[in-house]
Amino acid sequence: MSDMTTVLELPRLEEQEEKKTGGMIFVVLSGDFERVFAAFTLASTAAASGIPTKMFFTFWGLFSLVKNDRGMTGKNWMQKMMSVINPGGTEKLKLSQYHFSGMGTSMMRTLAKQNGMATPQELLEAALDLGVEMIPCQMTMDVLGLTKADMIDGIAEPAGAATVVALMQENKALFI
Amino acid sequence: MSDMTTVLELPRLEEQEEKKTGGMIFVVLSGDFERVFAAFTLASTAAASGIPTKMFFTFWGLFSLVKNDRGMTGKNWMQKMMSVINPGGTEKLKLSQYHFSGMGTSMMRTLAKQNGMATPQELLEAALDLGVEMIPCQMTMDVLGLTKADMIDGIAEPAGAATVVALMQENKALFI
Amino acid sequence: MSDMTTVLELPRLEEQEEKKTGGMIFVVLSGDFERVFAAFTLASTAAASGIPTKMFFTFWGLFSLVKNDRGMTGKNWMQKMMSVINPGGTEKLKLSQYHFSGMGTSMMRTLAKQNGMATPQELLEAALDLGVEMIPCQMTMDVLGLTKADMIDGIAEPAGAATVVALMQENKALFI
Repeated sequence: MSDMTTVLELPRLEEQEEKKTGGMIFVVLSGDFERVFAAFTLASTAAASGIPTKMFFTFWGLFSLVKNDRGMTGKNWMQKMMSVINPGGTEKLKLSQYHFSGMGTSMMRTLAKQNGMATPQELLEAALDLGVEMIPCQMTMDVLGLTKADMIDGIAEPAGAATVVALMQENKALFI
Repeated sequence: MSDMTTVLELPRLEEQEEKKTGGMIFVVLSGDFERVFAAFTLASTAAASGIPTKMFFTFWGLFSLVKNDRGMTGKNWMQKMMSVINPGGTEKLKLSQYHFSGMGTSMMRTLAKQNGMATPQELLEAALDLGVEMIPCQMTMDVLGLTKADMIDGIAEPAGAATVVALMQENKALFI
Repeated sequence: MSDMTTVLELPRLEEQEEKKTGGMIFVVLSGDFERVFAAFTLASTAAASGIPTKMFFTFWGLFSLVKNDRGMTGKNWMQKMMSVINPGGTEKLKLSQYHFSGMGTSMMRTLAKQNGMATPQELLEAALDLGVEMIPCQMTMDVLGLTKADMIDGIAEPAGAATVVALMQENKALFI
């Protein structure tokens, strides 16, 4: 009987260990250049290290998944106005401070380039290539009137809070 | 002896598993509309999924637990001035950007309502109903001169950094 | 054989438990007074509780590790300009809102002092004394042209994204 118990229990130990070295999920709410940049850097590095990595994009964070060449989005005037004020795409990301009508952010991009760093767009593409699953927030899409046509290719189906909470429970979760 | 060891060890395995599917704690420092909104959404969803959920409110985050109908708070002029500049309550939450003297935040609230989303106040009440334990930061209350009478009903006793670190250690922790 | 298996497996249980009560890593991207303050408070409290604690400082967060008496830093004009706009050191930390050209932040510092709270500088020093390992981001140092001479004493060697991801995987990770 001791044998039986031991044998039955061992697989559960293995499972636990597998779960321990489980995946990561980044919940990206911010649309600030530096936070999105950090999120893409950490997520692509994690994926490159063999860690199953997911990103959930909500609120301002979702704008990073909007196509760079997408102009005005939304269905009603409020949504359209919001998209004009805060256009989507990685090329339009702004620093949270010292943006200076674009000069500060542009300077930061130049400094980054001079030091051989990847751009947010390159990091986004690298992350997708490395298999990072990018999940847009359904609720944010609805509120902003964003459709699948507005979003970049290669991302996952939109999901809601219940999905992200389940993923947070199963993975190492970071809120950015 | 083998039997003994096996029998003695099994309960520990069970315990570990219970801990693994343990609770969540959200450390809410931000007072931005979108971050508080996200925190309440995730916390109430987690609680609704049966996950024991706690929230620790500190700094700007604490203002969400101040009564909506509370006017000026604080004991000395600095604390009073701070409460006038940044009044508490979920109804006074502002977007981190594009607040536009209220127009941007109001527009976002309207868009959310049109899409059948709950307000921060409704999410707060839902979270309380679902048993989310909301812990105000003692230090922040002291600094801002906030008393128990200023805070909404149904929240937990104020606690300090040592308590929150212990809770972070025992639970899945997110900093918002 | 049952004995063997049991004996062989037990140490793994022990290891798992040790890992479970493992360390914490705070990834500090923000340079806002309140977020840096919270990070140092939580990190020093965690270290004081016997939790092995690390902090990784990147982007705006890195400025907290610049010496308070350091003037202009950087090698080229862009880096120098950035350091003038956003000088480093804990004494120059600003509130994310209501800074009011220094008056708001100064008021908050006064309120904190009146309530016997430590300053960010004192918390930083306490954290170092308690053995918190403070790791500056190599990439940020390069981009901003910061050298070892610009940074405070007692911190760890600069490291990159791969290191921080590995630390995030092994420890409880919070993004601030």
